[in-house]
Amino acid sequence: MIISPVFDKDSSKALYIQLYEYIKNEIISGLLKPDSKLPSIREASASLNLSKTTIENAYSQLVAEGYIENQPKRGYFVCDLTEYSFDIVSTVLKSTVKQDSDTYYLNDGVDKDSFDISTWRRLYNKVVADEDTNIYSSGSIQGEKFLREEIANFVNTMRGGNTGPEQVIVGAGVQYLLGMLIGIIRSDYNTVAVETPGFYKAEYIFEDYSFNIRHIEVTDNGFPIGALKKSDAQVVYVSPSHQYPLGTTMPVNKRMELLDWAQKNNGLIIEDDYDGMIRYGGMPIPCLQGLDKNDCVIYLGSFSKMLLPSLRISFMVIPKKLLPVYSTIKTRHTQSTSKIDQVVLANFMKEGFMVKHLRKIKRIYKKKNMLLAASFKYRFKDKLEIINSDSGLHIVCEAAVKKTEHALQEDARKTGILLNIISSSKDKVIFSLNYSGINTDKIQDFTELLGKVLFE
Amino acid sequence: MIISPVFDKDSSKALYIQLYEYIKNEIISGLLKPDSKLPSIREASASLNLSKTTIENAYSQLVAEGYIENQPKRGYFVCDLTEYSFDIVSTVLKSTVKQDSDTYYLNDGVDKDSFDISTWRRLYNKVVADEDTNIYSSGSIQGEKFLREEIANFVNTMRGGNTGPEQVIVGAGVQYLLGMLIGIIRSDYNTVAVETPGFYKAEYIFEDYSFNIRHIEVTDNGFPIGALKKSDAQVVYVSPSHQYPLGTTMPVNKRMELLDWAQKNNGLIIEDDYDGMIRYGGMPIPCLQGLDKNDCVIYLGSFSKMLLPSLRISFMVIPKKLLPVYSTIKTRHTQSTSKIDQVVLANFMKEGFMVKHLRKIKRIYKKKNMLLAASFKYRFKDKLEIINSDSGLHIVCEAAVKKTEHALQEDARKTGILLNIISSSKDKVIFSLNYSGINTDKIQDFTELLGKVLFE
Repeated sequence: MIISPVFDKDSSKALYIQLYEYIKNEIISGLLKPDSKLPSIREASASLNLSKTTIENAYSQLVAEGYIENQPKRGYFVCDLTEYSFDIVSTVLKSTVKQDSDTYYLNDGVDKDSFDISTWRRLYNKVVADEDTNIYSSGSIQGEKFLREEIANFVNTMRGGNTGPEQVIVGAGVQYLLGMLIGIIRSDYNTVAVETPGFYKAEYIFEDYSFNIRHIEVTDNGFPIGALKKSDAQVVYVSPSHQYPLGTTMPVNKRMELLDWAQKNNGLIIEDDYDGMIRYGGMPIPCLQGLDKNDCVIYLGSFSKMLLPSLRISFMVIPKKLLPVYSTIKTRHTQSTSKIDQVVLANFMKEGFMVKHLRKIKRIYKKKNMLLAASFKYRFKDKLEIINSDSGLHIVCEAAVKKTEHALQEDARKTGILLNIISSSKDKVIFSLNYSGINTDKIQDFTELLGKVLFE
Repeated sequence: MIISPVFDKDSSKALYIQLYEYIKNEIISGLLKPDSKLPSIREASASLNLSKTTIENAYSQLVAEGYIENQPKRGYFVCDLTEYSFDIVSTVLKSTVKQDSDTYYLNDGVDKDSFDISTWRRLYNKVVADEDTNIYSSGSIQGEKFLREEIANFVNTMRGGNTGPEQVIVGAGVQYLLGMLIGIIRSDYNTVAVETPGFYKAEYIFEDYSFNIRHIEVTDNGFPIGALKKSDAQVVYVSPSHQYPLGTTMPVNKRMELLDWAQKNNGLIIEDDYDGMIRYGGMPIPCLQGLDKNDCVIYLGSFSKMLLPSLRISFMVIPKKLLPVYSTIKTRHTQSTSKIDQVVLANFMKEGFMVKHLRKIKRIYKKKNMLLAASFKYRFKDKLEIINSDSGLHIVCEAAVKKTEHALQEDARKTGILLNIISSSKDKVIFSLNYSGINTDKIQDFTELLGKVLFE
């Protein structure tokens, strides 16, 4: 059998690769028949005027990929691939599916002046260069110990919590952590109660893991514990510091009642404290976890809203009683947050920048919140009322809107405004609105745009 | 009713916080009875010699938290909390649970000289400062478009794949992406076949989502497609470039047979290409995805082994036919990888550093691989045989070990060696061993340690 490739001596491709590609194509196209014998390495080397090594390299690549086989003492033979029709697409097809671009919203994200990027960068450069960080090894599955210590300290001192670092689990986003939590509790629990309206992305995770979902309707009075008691749920997902999206705060008597329910029913309370740090009227409301005597609260926190959404660092504090199960299933997962980011954040916290940062953003968002309220008042008069705005990074509004919910949603999206419709009737709509990402000098422009979306 | 707090004028705590804490403690301890009326703001201001604002601030914090309530025109009253026993733990309890520290392994991770950290740092600093990155907004749910383009290009040119950027989904780890994939396919599929032995952390995810698991035993001849055909699985998880952990390569006829199976059964093939880039004997084996004409291969890749384990960036290429479902469920998830890291990586790839890096690590690991083999040969003679070592970052060994599997595992862990036992009998054990993290100058020491673990 003769092989007669044409070589391109000017190509950047090594000769053995050109030979390999030539033979492979001959086999695929059927020109080299199954079971036919290839020239021996010595023969090919002589006839093609190539070194034996070149031939050897090409042949071994073809053997490794299974196009030819080396039969001891007999030589190299073409494998039988005729059963399968090769039709390898050699050029990248232009996809016919429309590129589904993500929408960027005017009001999403955090304030551009809020973050001390030069400090972060300085710490990053230090951490990456530091031998102790050991960026070359994978990190701790649970989260770097240094960061878990800082987080425990943060939860205890800034949020009134009560935890040790061994209860803290670090992960890339609350959803990921919830999946892990479900892995810990699923042998004992299968029904969860969620706030409605609430943080739907949490509900989805429970749904994905085949939990039964019970919707507890949140009213102006907040979370109705009576309804929870009547349900068969043993796990409840709540946002007591600042109910998402309605913005109500759960008063201490309800918190105690909820803890009481958990104790009596051997239940679990998942506390989502997504923006509990940011409150304008006074100090932050201490978290529910700190009131828990019976080891039944799971606390979820995230640095995305607090610090920078382009970082993905969240954490979960689990009760001590769940630690034994966690330690048995822990190695089923990998750590999802960059070790480098974890150590940078730990340094950021340890050196006091987090406390400074929180003070700063409280000032920034308080001002933004007031300017927004004033701008809305001036522009919309009594067509729009702000119902809740004393904490967090979104406000809840009620507006005399005559559009359908769908039309409103569409207009908002087109304008680049992220609008979360809570309820709507014929001539009234209640929605929540992120405002953290609106530039302070753009508040009037934003108000104009919102006016068009709502009333035109 | 009289309140008589003692203030500490030297405390760093604001007076209103001291007053708030005083009243809160009086309520919790039962000294302030339910329904008793607090002095009015005017009265308290006069009697305590504090400004009205201070009293107001303390009172509103107590109202917000639900300890007192403001009855219009009547004044402030203590809420009834007697039903619940308060026993707030004010100091952080020393946990009684042993801190479950993570073990760091001598042989895990990547080579310390493999990564051009100064380039990465330079790109990081540039990206963070660049307005276009917009670190203040959350990124794309699917992954930054810039990175997805670079990844598609990488898969097509370096791995012989065939994808557009709209098929690429970025996420923090293969496990996270698998969870997402299951969300896409679960309405049509519920049974998956996995390689045994194989990458168990993938199997766990399917288990978590209640998939039926069918174990297909991988032999010296690789993955037996006949066994797959006999099973009722419609989805199969394989590592064709470099079977994990056995290290076999799936030849092209089997690949075609597998694709044929998928076509005939409307099946899906999940290709885990965890270290397919690294092969010493010749070029990397092109991926299965590139041979797929019928849009049925999901390709999984990760930069953790290729680049740096302390970064968490993985990706998944899904077939075009899954895009419509993906776009409907996409917003159920958040992006789990830092946007900053994504953009830094995209720049790293675009500027050609990835190709350079891969060339470099191939050289480094090839040398390490050879040194290790020589060191094993010299030290262990015929008590240990390396079965497979021509690619990837681990080798497969067979050793004449008389210890029980459990004792061996324990001794390895204590010594800090990560050993993955594939099979063991009375006097023989087959295991795979990562070697990427062993320093080149520590290979002899490592061999000594391994010898102790195996044979003493």
